Amino acid sequence: MSFKKQILGLIGWLLASVLVSVIGGLGSLNAPVFYRELNLPSWAPDAWLFGPVWTSLYTLMAIAAWLVWRQGGWENAKRALNLNVAQLAVNALWSWLFFAWYLGGVAFAEIIVLWLLIAATIQAYWKHHKVAAILLLPYLAWVTFAGALNLNLWLNNPGVL
Amino acid sequence: MSFKKQILGLIGWLLASVLVSVIGGLGSLNAPVFYRELNLPSWAPDAWLFGPVWTSLYTLMAIAAWLVWRQGGWENAKRALNLNVAQLAVNALWSWLFFAWYLGGVAFAEIIVLWLLIAATIQAYWKHHKVAAILLLPYLAWVTFAGALNLNLWLNNPGVL
Repeated sequence: MSFKKQILGLIGWLLASVLVSVIGGLGSLNAPVFYRELNLPSWAPDAWLFGPVWTSLYTLMAIAAWLVWRQGGWENAKRALNLNVAQLAVNALWSWLFFAWYLGGVAFAEIIVLWLLIAATIQAYWKHHKVAAILLLPYLAWVTFAGALNLNLWLNNPGVL
Repeated sequence: MSFKKQILGLIGWLLASVLVSVIGGLGSLNAPVFYRELNLPSWAPDAWLFGPVWTSLYTLMAIAAWLVWRQGGWENAKRALNLNVAQLAVNALWSWLFFAWYLGGVAFAEIIVLWLLIAATIQAYWKHHKVAAILLLPYLAWVTFAGALNLNLWLNNPGVL
């Protein structure tokens, strides 16, 4: 693969992450205010933390996808990269379920699907590029934590979520 | 709303259903062969049944969305119509999870999310247009059945799904 194509590919995967964060962001415009109004557990992070964490995770996702893609394009890793696109779509939808539509229970069920899809993506990446698979582990860890937080918020904010 | 705009809207919602069935269809190109090779329960329908059922359900979804939309466009029923778009996206993804990636367990978790999203859409439609809400009940019933079938196939086809 030419150097130019590799750079364009990296830009492409970064843009995919930006697109997902924009779609998710549009669904969670009210998040900074809404989050603070919730009945939060003691271990809930401050609202400002989510932005930097997600920016980091989206960057890692883009780099990981690029590493897998670079080894021979879509044809060579179709399943792994399609799984990644699927998990990105489910990721963006979550923000809408939780922050736009206040469907706390549906969002929790959906985060389980997201978790399973990330795990399947990691497993598929592993066969192509071990570093790429490892780059997604912080994401899986964060989604585990986010799932616990989602469940807690859903159970402790009846009538709101 | 003008007659012309109403007709264009109906065409638009029908095209959205076609798009979803095409995306789902691309993920399940191997379904006619794959399904017959599975270890099926006695109550599994013949493979030919799925096509007509889904065509009918997608048509009902389009008509229902159109009835809600027609009452004042997106602005008037933003939440209900966005929920409908979300359930359409989750619907298309299911075919990929099950038939393209053989992720029987993830597909089952995802069908629970789909079921919840359809229920939320019906609830949201109900406030705008009772007939539209009722038009989605066959869809909810079928997805209930499809979920049971998905679970059964996942449990009874280890190593395949």
